[in-house]
Amino acid sequence: MSSAKDIADDVRVLAFDIFGTVVDWHGSIAREVQAIAPRVDGDAFARAWRAGYKPAMARVMAGEQGWTLIDDLHRQILDSLLPQFGLDRLDEAQRRQLNRAWHRLDAWPDSVEGLTRLKRHYTICTLSNGNIGLLTDMAKRAGLPWDCVLSAEVFRAYKPDPATYLGVARVFDLRPDEVMLVAAHHDDLAGARACGLRTAYIERPLEFGAAHIKDVSPQPGNDLHAASLTALADQLGC
Amino acid sequence: MSSAKDIADDVRVLAFDIFGTVVDWHGSIAREVQAIAPRVDGDAFARAWRAGYKPAMARVMAGEQGWTLIDDLHRQILDSLLPQFGLDRLDEAQRRQLNRAWHRLDAWPDSVEGLTRLKRHYTICTLSNGNIGLLTDMAKRAGLPWDCVLSAEVFRAYKPDPATYLGVARVFDLRPDEVMLVAAHHDDLAGARACGLRTAYIERPLEFGAAHIKDVSPQPGNDLHAASLTALADQLGC
Repeated sequence: MSSAKDIADDVRVLAFDIFGTVVDWHGSIAREVQAIAPRVDGDAFARAWRAGYKPAMARVMAGEQGWTLIDDLHRQILDSLLPQFGLDRLDEAQRRQLNRAWHRLDAWPDSVEGLTRLKRHYTICTLSNGNIGLLTDMAKRAGLPWDCVLSAEVFRAYKPDPATYLGVARVFDLRPDEVMLVAAHHDDLAGARACGLRTAYIERPLEFGAAHIKDVSPQPGNDLHAASLTALADQLGC
Repeated sequence: MSSAKDIADDVRVLAFDIFGTVVDWHGSIAREVQAIAPRVDGDAFARAWRAGYKPAMARVMAGEQGWTLIDDLHRQILDSLLPQFGLDRLDEAQRRQLNRAWHRLDAWPDSVEGLTRLKRHYTICTLSNGNIGLLTDMAKRAGLPWDCVLSAEVFRAYKPDPATYLGVARVFDLRPDEVMLVAAHHDDLAGARACGLRTAYIERPLEFGAAHIKDVSPQPGNDLHAASLTALADQLGC
């Protein structure tokens, strides 16, 4: 593990995972579904919707389905999920509106301040499987001050495909070790590390809600480990 | 021509041409080359470099050269241009540094204020043939507050290919007439109009320098015609 000082000097671009790392998908989705269906278990609904996400991307990457934006994958999962929650009555307009909840996720309380501080010293960009429109709408609503919105949509591959991590370095004409992925998920960070990027783990114990506290203890291999984005800014001297 | 009020109500995304429309490539390039070679005619050098741009893109679109980022096209043109200006002595590091001048173009005096006001009511994005890294570096230096950086690089086609204009509408899941292209070039605006986008012409009489005043008189077909980005914000009630 390099020192935070070495990393602060070498890194030029910070690329951020979004769902769970910068924004609270669980709390936001639970709130949105309960707003239209107060008797639905918002916690279970949010976790079920999110659980469909990796299998859906895997089907695309296996070639069972052509290249698909996350908005459309979210909608496919939503349609398959509604009957289990007694929500088959939702009409097309309501389904569209609920699906757009992923464009309206709330930031974690430290995100705007942390990103604003980090932006003074680094180029900060998204690196999310979410599509560009989703990420742009989210940033505008939540005040996330990205220098640039990068997405699986730009590289036509989802994380952890190396095309995504190496794509960020190529976009900015940098070596991979001049880019750091910031994420709350060890599998994402491992994918970035395998491509030569630096990595910073962010603790998000509440990612799956207060009833399902996530183990956020440090794992070997990451360059940095921080409790929040403001704590990351502290470590990098921003 | 629709009324400005109708357009203000219907349009959701403003997509901006960059070189000449938002930033002053002529003045910036002339200044940069004169900083390293005071005896070079900065005006002639800037215009010659820029003049190589459309033919270079045409070679790529004709399949004579594979897909190429603008940074690399700029470098090819630069290398071919240096002998004419007595600058063949520039070494690799100096050429790289000069080529990056396109990342350091100054904004026109009204751009930051105009964009900031327009951003309150619309999603504002770039739609430039410049690559993402170039546009991001430029925005960070000049303080251009984009919601999103879109580029030929995302669509793997240069303007005026319809894939670029329609690509913006698709990214944001909008109809073409909910997107307005803002540009100082009639050919770019005509390409957008042919795809169903709204168009706003911006007067930039000094685009080619004070010695080569550009005719900026209105032409039929554009929805709006404004003297600057702040004037455009006035027209749209921002």
